[in-house]
Amino acid sequence: MTPDTGAADPRAPFDTALADRLMADRGLDVLLVNSGHNTRYLLGGHAFFFFQSMQALGHSRYLPLVVYARERLDEAAYVGSAMEAWDHALRPFWMPHVHTVSFGTRDAARCAVEHLKATGRDRAHIGIEPAFLTVDAMAVLRDGLPEARFGDATGVLERLRAVKRPDELDRLRQASERIVEAMQATVAGAGPGTGKAEIVERMRQEETRRGLHFDYCLVAMGADRNRAPSDQRWQPGEVLSIDSGGNLDGYIGDLCRMAVLGPPDAELQDLLAEVDATQQAAFAQLRAGAAGRTALERGNAVLAEGPNRACTDLVIHGMGLVSHEAPFLMSNRMYDGEDADAPLEAGMVLSVETSMNHPRRGLVKLEDTVALTADGCEMFGGAARGWNVAGS
Amino acid sequence: MTPDTGAADPRAPFDTALADRLMADRGLDVLLVNSGHNTRYLLGGHAFFFFQSMQALGHSRYLPLVVYARERLDEAAYVGSAMEAWDHALRPFWMPHVHTVSFGTRDAARCAVEHLKATGRDRAHIGIEPAFLTVDAMAVLRDGLPEARFGDATGVLERLRAVKRPDELDRLRQASERIVEAMQATVAGAGPGTGKAEIVERMRQEETRRGLHFDYCLVAMGADRNRAPSDQRWQPGEVLSIDSGGNLDGYIGDLCRMAVLGPPDAELQDLLAEVDATQQAAFAQLRAGAAGRTALERGNAVLAEGPNRACTDLVIHGMGLVSHEAPFLMSNRMYDGEDADAPLEAGMVLSVETSMNHPRRGLVKLEDTVALTADGCEMFGGAARGWNVAGS
Repeated sequence: MTPDTGAADPRAPFDTALADRLMADRGLDVLLVNSGHNTRYLLGGHAFFFFQSMQALGHSRYLPLVVYARERLDEAAYVGSAMEAWDHALRPFWMPHVHTVSFGTRDAARCAVEHLKATGRDRAHIGIEPAFLTVDAMAVLRDGLPEARFGDATGVLERLRAVKRPDELDRLRQASERIVEAMQATVAGAGPGTGKAEIVERMRQEETRRGLHFDYCLVAMGADRNRAPSDQRWQPGEVLSIDSGGNLDGYIGDLCRMAVLGPPDAELQDLLAEVDATQQAAFAQLRAGAAGRTALERGNAVLAEGPNRACTDLVIHGMGLVSHEAPFLMSNRMYDGEDADAPLEAGMVLSVETSMNHPRRGLVKLEDTVALTADGCEMFGGAARGWNVAGS
Repeated sequence: MTPDTGAADPRAPFDTALADRLMADRGLDVLLVNSGHNTRYLLGGHAFFFFQSMQALGHSRYLPLVVYARERLDEAAYVGSAMEAWDHALRPFWMPHVHTVSFGTRDAARCAVEHLKATGRDRAHIGIEPAFLTVDAMAVLRDGLPEARFGDATGVLERLRAVKRPDELDRLRQASERIVEAMQATVAGAGPGTGKAEIVERMRQEETRRGLHFDYCLVAMGADRNRAPSDQRWQPGEVLSIDSGGNLDGYIGDLCRMAVLGPPDAELQDLLAEVDATQQAAFAQLRAGAAGRTALERGNAVLAEGPNRACTDLVIHGMGLVSHEAPFLMSNRMYDGEDADAPLEAGMVLSVETSMNHPRRGLVKLEDTVALTADGCEMFGGAARGWNVAGS
């Protein structure tokens, strides 16, 4: 075995009883996890700083691996990069077994194989993340554990992360608030002729200045509904939608606010009010114990009463370490609405977004973040939901 | 087939003749590429802005795919995200076939399968990136193309990227210069009691302000050689090494500079001079036509004459879109020195780094970037190579 510097008396930062139950439901003996969001979650917040932006190195890439065997916390292990020993020395990981040894994908997988063999898991049913594990690491696992079976751990990890702890809620609240502040600063600095690409870069600067890690910024201006950065320039009376994501320690804020260059006319006031009416109708149904489907249905009922129903739609999705995560309420190309009928739980966090693609005025959109509580929901980053007026 | 919005008269932004030769050498008929650095390279700089920081979305993740069949530029295809149509509309990709259709890994892979079948590549030898392609996408490829064989395209892509075009050299020069400027600003703002974590955050801000995308910052302070962020505070007379990476449009700047709190004493002057002597000895051997091994050998010969040879080492590695890439000159745990004997070529870019782990004074390190020219090399970001004095 490679050197092991794990903790003697581990306390898991996640709900091991829930993990065990979810694994048992799917017949999984072991989780073998490598995505950035799930390794961060299982490690109680740790993500190796060196590889947060780039992952490629030489012929290969960074591949962190967390091993968790059902009902055997003492067997849990982390395989990290050789350089990650610096982080572990300063802020020891909770893991009972820690191997800071890898330089790429294959040596990381070999270390995980050694650990699984040493703990007698040669024939286990091992849940991996098929959308994140690499082909070469998988080949090492199959070669090293020829009698093991491999399954899909994605659902277990989604369920495990669905209800947020208070410290996670706090990060999501902070991220949301800072993104809205960044939007207000960006709009305040924009005026006639400001380009879409300039607005995106300004958002990147404003989010970074507020301690966030910028993820993306979608901007639509005037009647054009293309939301990619460009040299399109803002004209008086035109709307501007700023839909941006940024994260604090991995926890994503993702909101959309509206601006207009000069005072909004009566039509714009009406359009944003129509969008907000759908949002409010959805919010009113969101509380622990209610089915997620109810908020979608009630929001869509109000949407259907609006004059612009034909070009408006409502989306609700869970969010946290991933921008769309459990609960999954929608049925569409990406999701099967598996959580639509289940009671919502306090601590779940939802993004509620109503988009009106108005043929003449352009995109009018609000996206809000709400955390479910026992008797309703709390909005994160609830400022600036009206027309933010620039150029005054 | 899914909608195809490709260019009718494509001109590839990379050297297709070289790609064809490299593929023929390895018996590969098709390249199927998904890593961020290689898709960016083959697409002539395009990287979808929405997924540059985060990749996960819902149950899956973003998986861009470039298909290139040997000697058949007309068959080249790109499979991107559905939202990527916005980018393509504004700045059309050169690709003859473009499918902006995917929401995750599996639908992207299915689209690539359709394209390969439509172009009669059912039995091709397809080179993939085993350290980057995901397990679920691979399963879709195997199911959809049961008679195809799959090989490793990594080496082809490394060779293809090894010699940089003038526009790539310009980005690497800019990235290097801005990182050194960010270091100078960071040192100027630091003083007694400044913490390592503060320095890392300040570097992130300073790189972002200069239009770079921050990748990482390794900091060592005083005698402690742990380079992770911490609350360790700078004391008078202590050295500070700042080793940071950041990128401009994916092209990485990666340099290390030294600072000291208060004037450097005579010993520190000698230590940095000893490190620089090794660097200079390596630089003197770097020119097109020389074997890369020569620079390592001559650098190590000078290193071996220094009083601190026992705690000093020299590393030289290619760099560009990946922080360690071809030419591979070193033989160690990660690399087999496959390029050590080959003549260096004009347009290759090397990182030269000498690290002295002094037991009493701490890490004294210089890392420089040089681009090879016909008769020597040009240093990128060559400022501030002496002691940068803070607290004055």
